[in-house]
Amino acid sequence: MAQTERFSAVEIIAAKRNGSVLTDPQIDWVIEAYTRGAVADEQMSALLMAIFLNGMELGEISRWTDAMINSGERMNWSVLSRPTVDKHSTGGVGDKITLPLAPLVAACGAAVPQLSGRGLGHTGGTLDKLESIPGWRASLSNQEMLKVLQDCGAVICAAGDGLAPADKKLYALRDVTATVEAIPLIASSIMSKKIAEGTSALVLDIKTGAGAFMKDPQKAKELAEVMIGLGKRAGVKTLALVTAMDVPLGLTAGNALEVRESVEVLAGGGPPDIVELTILFAQEMLELAGIKGIDPATALKNGKAMDVWRQMIKGQGGDPDAKLPVAKETLIVTAESSGFILGMDAMKVGMAVWRLGAGRTRQGEAVQLAAGIEIHAKPGERIKQGAPLFTLHTDTPEAFVRAQESLVDSVVIGDLPASGKLDRLPLVVERITH
Amino acid sequence: MAQTERFSAVEIIAAKRNGSVLTDPQIDWVIEAYTRGAVADEQMSALLMAIFLNGMELGEISRWTDAMINSGERMNWSVLSRPTVDKHSTGGVGDKITLPLAPLVAACGAAVPQLSGRGLGHTGGTLDKLESIPGWRASLSNQEMLKVLQDCGAVICAAGDGLAPADKKLYALRDVTATVEAIPLIASSIMSKKIAEGTSALVLDIKTGAGAFMKDPQKAKELAEVMIGLGKRAGVKTLALVTAMDVPLGLTAGNALEVRESVEVLAGGGPPDIVELTILFAQEMLELAGIKGIDPATALKNGKAMDVWRQMIKGQGGDPDAKLPVAKETLIVTAESSGFILGMDAMKVGMAVWRLGAGRTRQGEAVQLAAGIEIHAKPGERIKQGAPLFTLHTDTPEAFVRAQESLVDSVVIGDLPASGKLDRLPLVVERITH
Repeated sequence: MAQTERFSAVEIIAAKRNGSVLTDPQIDWVIEAYTRGAVADEQMSALLMAIFLNGMELGEISRWTDAMINSGERMNWSVLSRPTVDKHSTGGVGDKITLPLAPLVAACGAAVPQLSGRGLGHTGGTLDKLESIPGWRASLSNQEMLKVLQDCGAVICAAGDGLAPADKKLYALRDVTATVEAIPLIASSIMSKKIAEGTSALVLDIKTGAGAFMKDPQKAKELAEVMIGLGKRAGVKTLALVTAMDVPLGLTAGNALEVRESVEVLAGGGPPDIVELTILFAQEMLELAGIKGIDPATALKNGKAMDVWRQMIKGQGGDPDAKLPVAKETLIVTAESSGFILGMDAMKVGMAVWRLGAGRTRQGEAVQLAAGIEIHAKPGERIKQGAPLFTLHTDTPEAFVRAQESLVDSVVIGDLPASGKLDRLPLVVERITH
Repeated sequence: MAQTERFSAVEIIAAKRNGSVLTDPQIDWVIEAYTRGAVADEQMSALLMAIFLNGMELGEISRWTDAMINSGERMNWSVLSRPTVDKHSTGGVGDKITLPLAPLVAACGAAVPQLSGRGLGHTGGTLDKLESIPGWRASLSNQEMLKVLQDCGAVICAAGDGLAPADKKLYALRDVTATVEAIPLIASSIMSKKIAEGTSALVLDIKTGAGAFMKDPQKAKELAEVMIGLGKRAGVKTLALVTAMDVPLGLTAGNALEVRESVEVLAGGGPPDIVELTILFAQEMLELAGIKGIDPATALKNGKAMDVWRQMIKGQGGDPDAKLPVAKETLIVTAESSGFILGMDAMKVGMAVWRLGAGRTRQGEAVQLAAGIEIHAKPGERIKQGAPLFTLHTDTPEAFVRAQESLVDSVVIGDLPASGKLDRLPLVVERITH
């Protein structure tokens, strides 16, 4: 303990342990001192557990977020002539909405400076998906990022090391200390990156249901409200849609498979749930960015969004016409009985995708670009016994056994209830603006 | 994360975070894996904070204690012809009871194998006190310990590195992560050392009041009950006295000063509160050891306890006749008004003693052997304005200023209430046997 420190880590941990509200100078110091190593990992993890169990008020979370932003650079897009707007999803199975959405919103006149992440666990990561396009690069310098954004209105790339380094260090620590799923810590982690990214407006997609981190819709709503509060305090126009993640989105989950489906959407086709969510988010983003009178559905149909997509992929070194990787082995899983598909567990499908090699167990691991699952029938559709339900893709066929184990009981087939309605979440559970 | 580990640290942390009861194999593994370094400090500190906030059941604390004992050696005194009994105090200001007590109980026929600690913060440590005796050694090999115990019936020494190493590592971690004051962690830490020490019976002195770690008598009682439960489960006959630490014990606080006072008690004199507590604990220890019909008061008066003391000090290399260290400087603090002394804040006096150099701020620091405070009048006594209240002793006279700051408002002088009784804790607040 150097005598020159303004605060003592032990006193700050004890304050949160006792249920006190941390002061602004305490929060500023503890994040700054942790980033430079004067607060040790074992001290920060004790503080994180105290935050997990005793909570934080919005004012504390806001200051904590600011302190993480201030640990690095804050990007600025004021040189752009277009308004900036971004979208963030808390992650789900088959959630490839960002891929068609960013070029679509750019085609409608906004600028989308999206810093994305990689997958961890059962949910995929946008950067992993895009890396299945030959030549495409996730890492751009700030100058390269600005050039792609100026040239085509959208960029999807990795956050540089200079952006919220405190969050990077904290995220790795939370992962090994069972302090991930706390609303103050999730909200501040996401929002510190999004605010530092320099977007003027932000639409949040808070997933809920079996395949989401926030399985309880009430908790998802609470997270949405905290994140909106943080955005507004930082001067970022923010709103949130709480959306369904009980069932996988679309008909594919896995990196290259999801890119293929995204391109179908950009070509005016694709599964209806993906198209519906993409257009809905585009409308919200355009409204928040102050762009009126443009119908994103038209920009999907007339190929303008596809033009931006191709330009954006080329701008980051990718070849939009190249053949996507194909898995060495496939295996078809068939329906065990005939009837209506009543449910499909997103978590079980996500775990199977992960076991096929599409995801990683720890940060830094490589993923199989071609691994994943194609879904041949979704809840609400009728299927016959023995008809194809899933096609599993992998380069490592020994993975089929464990993937199939994970799919046991993932699909419920039976008679439609008398009401004719499935027992599942609506696609949009709630729209939250404050 | 090695694939060969039986458990995942993250899952164990998450279980306690969610309020679950940890299983025996989980507890065994996490202590064992932490001791060998497979569970990281930042993981253990998150678990400790979850234990602090969510608690542990007695069964969990007992297993946790066993796991810490099993991390090292367990001593065994079955070669001795006498029954073994020990005493542990949670620490207070001027609490030198162990010094006259151990030889007294030995003089009455029991064997006292006491492993003691050093002071940290405002309370003194038995080993620091005894080290003010020229030549005396705290570190003994197990063979040396047995020899002193066989020769004179009592030994007071430091716990070796082989004893509960998990507790040593955890104690250092708790100190920097604000996870010290949790009953499950305090109780398991003390009891793991006392059970590993191999005593058959144990009397606990749980201090309560301003100068104690457990300021609230109800919390002190709760700690006592948990520790008794742990002792009984381990086959150690255990009882506890919750005793007063609102006012310093005796008339001295500081290493050599307390040895001097202890020798006065062994010589048949000394302050009445020290004599009373010493005899009371000796009676409890003898009863628990099954030794009947011996009056410890007599052994104090007739010099038998003093004989054991001299033999014990010599057995550990000390010279019982050597002059004790004397401080280079003294300063007398006088009464600001006349009247009855109504109160004396043990914490404020303890802090002053610490600031004079008698205590340490971190483990491993040296202490001043001669520093401390003599108390010239205690609560209940009448004093005149300007009469000596304290004599401060130090080798570093620049410490006087901060020590005096700490003594401001430490003594309340006024009129006795109509009842004639002071508002203070009884010397023994409660006797707890289960």
